[in-house]
Amino acid sequence: MMKPENVMLSDDGKSVVIIDQTQLPNRTVHLTLTTPGEFYEAIYELKVRGAPAIGICAGMGLYVIANGFEETEEEHFLTKLHNVSVYLNSSRPTAVNLKHALDRVENAAHTEKGNGTAAMLAAMRKECIAIQDEDIAMCRAISEYGLTLVKDGDGILTHCNAGPLATSCYGTGLGTLLLGKEKGYTFHAYTDETRPLLQGARLTAYELDKAGIDVTLICDNMASIVMKQGKINACFVGCDRVAANGDTANKIGTSGVAVLAKHYGIPFYVFCPSSTIDMNCMTGADIEIEERQPDEIKTKFFAEPVAPASVKAYNPAFDVTDAELITAIITEKGICRYPYTDSLAALFRGE
Amino acid sequence: MMKPENVMLSDDGKSVVIIDQTQLPNRTVHLTLTTPGEFYEAIYELKVRGAPAIGICAGMGLYVIANGFEETEEEHFLTKLHNVSVYLNSSRPTAVNLKHALDRVENAAHTEKGNGTAAMLAAMRKECIAIQDEDIAMCRAISEYGLTLVKDGDGILTHCNAGPLATSCYGTGLGTLLLGKEKGYTFHAYTDETRPLLQGARLTAYELDKAGIDVTLICDNMASIVMKQGKINACFVGCDRVAANGDTANKIGTSGVAVLAKHYGIPFYVFCPSSTIDMNCMTGADIEIEERQPDEIKTKFFAEPVAPASVKAYNPAFDVTDAELITAIITEKGICRYPYTDSLAALFRGE
Repeated sequence: MMKPENVMLSDDGKSVVIIDQTQLPNRTVHLTLTTPGEFYEAIYELKVRGAPAIGICAGMGLYVIANGFEETEEEHFLTKLHNVSVYLNSSRPTAVNLKHALDRVENAAHTEKGNGTAAMLAAMRKECIAIQDEDIAMCRAISEYGLTLVKDGDGILTHCNAGPLATSCYGTGLGTLLLGKEKGYTFHAYTDETRPLLQGARLTAYELDKAGIDVTLICDNMASIVMKQGKINACFVGCDRVAANGDTANKIGTSGVAVLAKHYGIPFYVFCPSSTIDMNCMTGADIEIEERQPDEIKTKFFAEPVAPASVKAYNPAFDVTDAELITAIITEKGICRYPYTDSLAALFRGE
Repeated sequence: MMKPENVMLSDDGKSVVIIDQTQLPNRTVHLTLTTPGEFYEAIYELKVRGAPAIGICAGMGLYVIANGFEETEEEHFLTKLHNVSVYLNSSRPTAVNLKHALDRVENAAHTEKGNGTAAMLAAMRKECIAIQDEDIAMCRAISEYGLTLVKDGDGILTHCNAGPLATSCYGTGLGTLLLGKEKGYTFHAYTDETRPLLQGARLTAYELDKAGIDVTLICDNMASIVMKQGKINACFVGCDRVAANGDTANKIGTSGVAVLAKHYGIPFYVFCPSSTIDMNCMTGADIEIEERQPDEIKTKFFAEPVAPASVKAYNPAFDVTDAELITAIITEKGICRYPYTDSLAALFRGE
């Protein structure tokens, strides 16, 4: 059974140790975070990334910082706590998990009003550990469902990174491979490098290799040939947002993988916590696509620029995969199939 | 009307000036080649690349070197000439155009036997210029046919590089864009960067931008989103080999672009000289795919490795696009359409 390695609370509650994801795969650097500034910087600079992992780190950070207050007056304690929470939340204001985790840990302190700050700290510690434990359980449940969709020896194509580094353990898109490995399955992963930010090469290949899973790195434009050659039995991706009709926003390139999979008759699976499904968003057309800087394509990671300075580059960070290209959406609550307008609604009704 | 800039014979016939393609796009370095060693190195190290451009350069090189022989005895002259031809041909033994061009220039000398070495040199000069002129005419004819398939204002997706740098002028896959520009068409090119060697970013984006064509660089995995957004009216690629049934080998990723184009209802066009069509090769299954070094994916061009040393990488240099995904194959002799078994055979019968 996996244990979290990306974000770890120290036994004495005085620090959080994270793996600096910006240094991977060339250097495994552990950072010990104790001060508000250190937590803020770690999140802001993507040293910890992946919405669930950010939430876990921030929640633990709030507890660790409060643990150092040396403040026994309750109201003063709660005021200082709130100020730190607001500050940490400003590190990446768009990530919903961040705010959610900070609120949970802060609210835990409030439940012990009248019982003293030591009780408040104990409740906060329990809550931030609960957030991580819940994430582990959710990823594990998703992965158990995933294992029902594949068989030993399968070749699995992955895109981007939805593994333990982005969550706690197992991950979403990679969880089936990692849990399967624990259970004795042999999978053969083909990992898209995922341009321009190379999360597939830098993080997914690293995570699968480290777990002892057979992994072969390919460029994104090689997905077609490996599918045609019969090497791929299923495609696994995570996602950023699922609309009520099943249209799914995920890392740029995901929709292309889905079109290829359909052409070659290969199942295409999306893995996500049910909290990623936005029933207020009717279709993919309602999902705004973030466009990032051209320099991520032209200069980032390279020894020198790969295109002339005068050439434009278009850099959408995500794309939307049409619901009809998705074989199934796998959540911790169960597996949904097309048509998703019905199956996703049924999922939330608990059917 | 374009003039060749990548390979240029000096007026005095004493040298050939090339653009060093390994330095593009960051530096436009012209190299003056005069000695056998310089020509060999330029071809071997890909400073001149693209099968037609290699042939043109080698043919001119043979003439330039012979021009410096200071040898008036015909048999001695022809022996020295043959030795140089064999040496230059060994620089990249697999490129057919190289041998073909060297043979043509050497044979030109033989046609003047008895007329003296000055006459031999004059015939060689004429022949190597003819090789370049024929390539220009062929590329231009392909491009004229290409212009009948598109309309002003179209968005064109390109993959890899099949432009003037690889040929003489215009190129094959890019010729329609460049000839169209001369004729006043406005096209909007979307250029796949083409991992792992980035010929799209380094060479195609450079060539189109230099010609004043509106070009936007994208990562290979963004082809799906720009097609879905309606930005693409046609896909243009060159090719390395076409089988008798129309199956086409080209740079890795081409088959993926073709599948996406079919899914989104966009025409997919292959541009090539008729000499690229191999009627002795029945289907794409008979085309062997070259597999190259993993380091091209993991380390080349990057400031530091993008994946752990222990991770395998699969690096096929080409893939085969199935004939039924190709809307038309455009040659200097005319346009062929599916089913290609019939249309390609008719092309060679001159129908």
